[in-house]
Amino acid sequence: MSDKNNTKENTEKLTVGKSEDFSEWYNQLVQKAGLADYAPISGCMIVKPYGYSLWENIKSWFDKKIKKTGVQNVYFPLFIPESLLKKEAEHFEGFVPEVAWIERKDEKEEKYALRPTSETIMYDTYSKWIRSWRDLPLRLNQWCNIVRWEVKATRLFLRTREFLWQEGHTAHVSLEDATEEAELRANQYKELMETQLAIPVIMGKKSKSETFPGALYTIALEALMPDGKALQMGTSHNLGQHFAKVFGISFQDKDKQEKPVFQTSWGISTRLVGAVTMVHGDDKGLILPPRIAPIHVVIVPIFKNDNKKAVLKEVNKLKESLDDDFEIHVDDRDSYSPGWKFNEWEMKGVPIRLEIGPKDIEKKQVVLVRRDNGEKKPVKIKGIEKVIEKTLDLIHNNMFERAGKFLKDNTKNVKDMQQFEKLIKDGKMVRTYWCGNGKCEEKIKDKTSATIRCIENENAKTKGKCVGCSTESKTVVYFAKAY
Amino acid sequence: MSDKNNTKENTEKLTVGKSEDFSEWYNQLVQKAGLADYAPISGCMIVKPYGYSLWENIKSWFDKKIKKTGVQNVYFPLFIPESLLKKEAEHFEGFVPEVAWIERKDEKEEKYALRPTSETIMYDTYSKWIRSWRDLPLRLNQWCNIVRWEVKATRLFLRTREFLWQEGHTAHVSLEDATEEAELRANQYKELMETQLAIPVIMGKKSKSETFPGALYTIALEALMPDGKALQMGTSHNLGQHFAKVFGISFQDKDKQEKPVFQTSWGISTRLVGAVTMVHGDDKGLILPPRIAPIHVVIVPIFKNDNKKAVLKEVNKLKESLDDDFEIHVDDRDSYSPGWKFNEWEMKGVPIRLEIGPKDIEKKQVVLVRRDNGEKKPVKIKGIEKVIEKTLDLIHNNMFERAGKFLKDNTKNVKDMQQFEKLIKDGKMVRTYWCGNGKCEEKIKDKTSATIRCIENENAKTKGKCVGCSTESKTVVYFAKAY
Repeated sequence: MSDKNNTKENTEKLTVGKSEDFSEWYNQLVQKAGLADYAPISGCMIVKPYGYSLWENIKSWFDKKIKKTGVQNVYFPLFIPESLLKKEAEHFEGFVPEVAWIERKDEKEEKYALRPTSETIMYDTYSKWIRSWRDLPLRLNQWCNIVRWEVKATRLFLRTREFLWQEGHTAHVSLEDATEEAELRANQYKELMETQLAIPVIMGKKSKSETFPGALYTIALEALMPDGKALQMGTSHNLGQHFAKVFGISFQDKDKQEKPVFQTSWGISTRLVGAVTMVHGDDKGLILPPRIAPIHVVIVPIFKNDNKKAVLKEVNKLKESLDDDFEIHVDDRDSYSPGWKFNEWEMKGVPIRLEIGPKDIEKKQVVLVRRDNGEKKPVKIKGIEKVIEKTLDLIHNNMFERAGKFLKDNTKNVKDMQQFEKLIKDGKMVRTYWCGNGKCEEKIKDKTSATIRCIENENAKTKGKCVGCSTESKTVVYFAKAY
Repeated sequence: MSDKNNTKENTEKLTVGKSEDFSEWYNQLVQKAGLADYAPISGCMIVKPYGYSLWENIKSWFDKKIKKTGVQNVYFPLFIPESLLKKEAEHFEGFVPEVAWIERKDEKEEKYALRPTSETIMYDTYSKWIRSWRDLPLRLNQWCNIVRWEVKATRLFLRTREFLWQEGHTAHVSLEDATEEAELRANQYKELMETQLAIPVIMGKKSKSETFPGALYTIALEALMPDGKALQMGTSHNLGQHFAKVFGISFQDKDKQEKPVFQTSWGISTRLVGAVTMVHGDDKGLILPPRIAPIHVVIVPIFKNDNKKAVLKEVNKLKESLDDDFEIHVDDRDSYSPGWKFNEWEMKGVPIRLEIGPKDIEKKQVVLVRRDNGEKKPVKIKGIEKVIEKTLDLIHNNMFERAGKFLKDNTKNVKDMQQFEKLIKDGKMVRTYWCGNGKCEEKIKDKTSATIRCIENENAKTKGKCVGCSTESKTVVYFAKAY
């Protein structure tokens, strides 16, 4: 994508370590690994091919998953009339500071917003489409761009004024069905994060203050980043009948009664690419989870002028034998040394590197190097596909375990505010009792900047004292600072 | 998607024939077949699940095609700063009446437009990414939404204020490479239209007046709609060095000289779904080209209460045996008669219907009905997958031939203006000599509303008289009214 000799991309190593200056490390890595670039518009990003491939792989896995469980894709307009956006007051209040509006061309036309989320425009239409219990469940999803005119500092993938996401919007005959749906999608997100991104997540309901505006409750999936801040990875909202009543979405039930539907909405975004970068990366660059990596194996041939042809012949034979099962890239560029190439592919986080030179060819072997732990060993070419398959699984498991250990080691049970403050300051996630009172939560936030990321259990077997106000409580929650 | 008893979708047949009132027929069909719906925003549409599946299938085929030929996907911002959009005057003038702007939140920030196309924002970035001949060719593509605030009357899929498309943007070291690229993409579009959509197209350069603002030349793919109007199905632009000079995209060549790159851009949009609807549909509904049809085969079991279980058992066995190779849908709803179901699936244009009742089961057969020609015949269940495969190909070929015959029958060679006017009035496409003068073209347009859709040949073997001004010419063109 750019001249390796003239531009900064890829050539230069990261100039700061991950533990040294996490924020700067992240910004450098996103750009140097070719994931994204700053756009010539404040707060916006350009998703580059390598970063976009990651999003395509996430999308493709999840899209299959939801289609198998009854979801159909659609596309609703980017524009939302002001009257619709304002129809549900709490929802509107929640989004209005970030809403971008288009300049009116015709004063007779209504004012239009750019979608900050699509509940309002979709549900206005649902009220026309849904008539009877036979139309339910209705499960629609769209992959689209979203605009939120952030005033806070923006960061590539984590907070930008435009991002890509999917938003699922379903309607059901009963609260039970909606509850089941909201849980199903939350569980599918968990599966995505754990089995594809190798990121362990904590899942639970949000407290009222962090609940989606207009929802009955929000199930959140939260991951702990290496700097001790939690990142919201996805949310699934049980909307109850709230929007249905506001937008008049009712159905005739089997008993001939007109009833409002029960609804859910749920979403994940390109933010996940940022999470993968932060959780797994190291001082050499990205470490990509094998199942979403755009390239599984990079082959670096080691040759001189006199044996180049012979080496490349073997390399291409090897590539062809693996092409059906894996994404293989051969780096046969003349102008770079093998060492330079090793650095580049380490920066890009390719899970497996195969080095192959004349001596390896004699021995009918290659040298296999794992990106996740640097392990290096010779492998016979015969039967190598099985070794690669197994190694990719080992890498995934190792990455998931490592991230799991980090989460475990950095999640602390606390009983009093002193401990709490110290641990939050030290970049820990804190597990504690909470009285359930929003004011108490607010006080803790003011004091420590930590918020409730999610509720582990609202009805724990044992009681404990709320960390904020010492009231006896059965509600166990996770507190952390958050992105 | 909606209660078949209460809403208009699907239940009602089309109330006008295709030849009776083409425009009304089209509007009804798009909605009744479940392709799209009007949005609560003037000039915008909602792409419904069935219509979106068609777009997904088109997208999936073309995305694979371009990835195999060196293209990578990316995502650039929706927003374009005014200064970038205005940088190339001709380009800006071409788009400005349709550009939508967002309201400024901060007077210190620049004014932002919503992308009417992405040349300007992408090429500004290309100027930073491209340094050397080693970075070329650069071939990027994005699938995204586009905003053009139409003032003309809008129509579902054909002209809406927002639509979905892909835009490819490439950069090369030489004019030859750019020429080859522009032709490659045009040919891939032709292949898509002919082998997937079963729509024959005429391909050729545009005259200057219809060339993309800023391009050296535009290759257009044009299809003739049943009402005698041409529809532009896709375009591929050779941009030469024009944008490269304006945006400063230069590379250091092997000879160490800095040179501007040569570029192309090319796109197709959701408009293609409209083309498929118009070209193939009939008075009963859609007729979908098998290779993009969301459902290949609908199975309608014929049962009564006493034999329902036995029939459904056979039907499900049949479905399972075909599921791996085709998209199969079983319509086992109780509340509708087989005849009602036949009508519905004909409206939705499913290529093959299989009817199966107790007598068929006894005979180990099903009744196969083709949507394209209504042909109905019994087929043995044993070996049916081969019959289906072959029949889908036959349907595709028949549809393509039928559309080809229509195109041929309605394209007429003319020599004088009198003939020309009469034929254009009768809804024909006209093949004729043209002097090459824009003013002459303009006069013809004013008189007949017909425009040059594309140039067949700029250097024909025989000369002829320009239909407008009688000047001798070697340029053969197609004229038609257009969407």
